[in-house]
Amino acid sequence: MIQTPYLLFLGDAPDPLSAKVAQGIRDWRPEFAVGQLRMEGCKADMGLPDMTLEQAKAAGARTLVVGVANRGGVISPAWKKVLVAALEEGFDLASGLHNLLRDEEDLAAVARATGRTLHDVRVPTVRYPIADGRPRAGKRCLAVGTDCSVGKMYTALAMEREMRERGMKTTFRATGQTGILITGEGVPLDAVIADFMAGSVEWLTPDNDPDHWDLIEGQGSLFHVSYSGVTMALIHGGQPDALILCHEPTREHMRGLPEYSLPSLEALRDLALQLAHVANTGCKVVGVSVNTAAMAEDAADAYLREVESRLGLPAVDPFRHGAGPLVDALEKV
Amino acid sequence: MIQTPYLLFLGDAPDPLSAKVAQGIRDWRPEFAVGQLRMEGCKADMGLPDMTLEQAKAAGARTLVVGVANRGGVISPAWKKVLVAALEEGFDLASGLHNLLRDEEDLAAVARATGRTLHDVRVPTVRYPIADGRPRAGKRCLAVGTDCSVGKMYTALAMEREMRERGMKTTFRATGQTGILITGEGVPLDAVIADFMAGSVEWLTPDNDPDHWDLIEGQGSLFHVSYSGVTMALIHGGQPDALILCHEPTREHMRGLPEYSLPSLEALRDLALQLAHVANTGCKVVGVSVNTAAMAEDAADAYLREVESRLGLPAVDPFRHGAGPLVDALEKV
Repeated sequence: MIQTPYLLFLGDAPDPLSAKVAQGIRDWRPEFAVGQLRMEGCKADMGLPDMTLEQAKAAGARTLVVGVANRGGVISPAWKKVLVAALEEGFDLASGLHNLLRDEEDLAAVARATGRTLHDVRVPTVRYPIADGRPRAGKRCLAVGTDCSVGKMYTALAMEREMRERGMKTTFRATGQTGILITGEGVPLDAVIADFMAGSVEWLTPDNDPDHWDLIEGQGSLFHVSYSGVTMALIHGGQPDALILCHEPTREHMRGLPEYSLPSLEALRDLALQLAHVANTGCKVVGVSVNTAAMAEDAADAYLREVESRLGLPAVDPFRHGAGPLVDALEKV
Repeated sequence: MIQTPYLLFLGDAPDPLSAKVAQGIRDWRPEFAVGQLRMEGCKADMGLPDMTLEQAKAAGARTLVVGVANRGGVISPAWKKVLVAALEEGFDLASGLHNLLRDEEDLAAVARATGRTLHDVRVPTVRYPIADGRPRAGKRCLAVGTDCSVGKMYTALAMEREMRERGMKTTFRATGQTGILITGEGVPLDAVIADFMAGSVEWLTPDNDPDHWDLIEGQGSLFHVSYSGVTMALIHGGQPDALILCHEPTREHMRGLPEYSLPSLEALRDLALQLAHVANTGCKVVGVSVNTAAMAEDAADAYLREVESRLGLPAVDPFRHGAGPLVDALEKV
C-alpha cells in the first residue's frame, strides 16, 4: 500500500497525454494530490499548486508519484536528480514505468540509506493463493470490453464516484498500474504468474458487507487473443454479480491486431455471461458503457439509443453523461 | 533444452505412483532412458537396467532426471549425496519439483564449480513475446478437458506415437513440467507471467510444414475457475485447427473444487469451439478421449458408444484402445 497523499511528478512531459497517470489521480483521487512538480519544458499541467519538494513535504505529501510516461523507457539523468532529492527529503517513490526504480543502482542505494520505499507497481509484491472458487459475501461488478483500452477503468471509477455520492458502499479494485497508482493499492494482474491470476483476483475482492460493491477494474478482452487469459481470470476469480459491457464504436480492428475485427456487443454479452455463470450462476449483464469520444454529440446520442433498444440495457458514455444509469441498474441487482 | 539421454533417478520412491515422471519418460521416450538409479527402499521400478552413475555415464547418459516426487517438497540429505555425485560425474540435473535445485546452496555451488546445468523445468528461462495473433503455417491440435487431470497429456502423446507410426509429421509440444521432462523441452505455462501466456504458446508452436501437426499439451479447463485463464491462453495462442475433448466420466466434482460440478461434453465442445474460432475460424472438434480407468471394460465400451452417438464424434480411451480413431479423424482435417 502506497502512503498518501502524493506529490505528482510531471517531469519534462512532452505533452498532456504523457501525464495520464497524474491526470487519473487528479480526476479520481484529488484528495490524494497535494501538488505537482514540473521540470523545465514540462507541457503538462494538472491545475494543482506547483511545489518544491520542501513545500510538498510541509503540506503533508508522503510519496512522489511518477505521473508521466518517459520517452524510450529510460529514467533520464534530469529525472534522477529530482528522484534522489525526493528520497533524501523523506518521500517514498512510486512508479508504473516498465523500467523499475529498484533497478536503478543510485535510487536503490539512496532508498536503502534513507529507509524509504520504492514502489514499482508493475511488480507483484504479494504471494497470491491459487483460487478456491468459494462464494464470498458482498457484491462484485466487473467491466468487460469488446477490446482493450475501451474505457473499462474509467467506467468503474465513474461508477464508484456516483455510488459514493449516493451513499452506497463501494470500492474500486485496481488491477493495472494506473489504477494502482490512483488508489494506492491493487493487483498488477498482467504481471501475475499464470497459476495465481484468478487467486489474486479473489484476494483483491474478499468477503465484505452484503450491500457492498467491489467495482473490479477490467483488463484485456475475451476477444483479444494476446490477453484473453487475463480477462478469463478476472471473470472466474472475481465471481461478478454484475457485468458492464464496454465498447468503442469507431475502432476498426482489435488494438494491435490488424487482422482481428471487434465482436458485437451481443457476442460479448453472451460469451461473458456464459463464462461468468461457471463461477456465479446469478450473474447478470446490467448495462453498456460506450466511449464516444470520437463521435459528435448527435451521433453519440443516436448510437446510445440504438444500443439501448437493441440490447434492452441502459447505455451511456460515463464521461459525457455520468454513470448514473449504470448505477441505477446496479441498484436493482 | 535438456541434454538426452537420461539416467532416471527414482530415489527412495515410497510407491510406484510417486515416480510418474520417470514412468512418463519410460512410456513415451524410452530411447531417452538409458537406465535407472534407485536408492535403498525404493518401491518403484521402471524395468530399466539399474546403473551406478559411472555405468550410466559410460552408457552415454548426459542428464540425471529427478523422476520421483519427494515427500513434503524437501530435497532430502540422502538425495543430495547422489545429486552432488552426479554433478561431479559430469551429469546435468533436471527436476520439476516445487523446491528448486538452484535454491539448494550446495547443488548450486557444485554446479558452478563443475560447469554443469541445473534444469528446474517449473521456471521459464525464455523471455516470451506478447502474442501477435498472426496465422502460422502448419497445423495444430489441442486437447481440452472438462476438468484438470483427465488425460490431456496422455492423449496427445498417444496420438503422437500413432501418427509417427503412420509416418505423419508431428511434434508433441509440452506445456507442463512432466511433459517438458519427457521430451526435454517446452513451456512451463502455469509459471509464465500473465501478459505473455498466449505469446509463449505462439513461440512454442511456430510456422511449420503445411502437413505438420503440433500436438499441444492441454492445461487446466475452461470450466476450472482456478486455471481457466491458462486454458484460454492455450486456445488463443495455439490457434488450433483441431480440438480433442477429454473427459473422466466418474469424477464427482471439479478437481479441488467440491462445489463445482463438471460440464457436459456438449458444453465443453460448444464453448471451446466458440473461443477457438476467435483465433482460427476453421477450427473443428474432431474427437473425444475418455479416461475409463475407473470403469469395467463393458461399462467403458457402452459409455464410449453412447458418447459417439450423442456427439457424432469418434470416442476412445487411448490407454485401452490406442489413439487410432483420433488420428483417423485428424487425417480428415
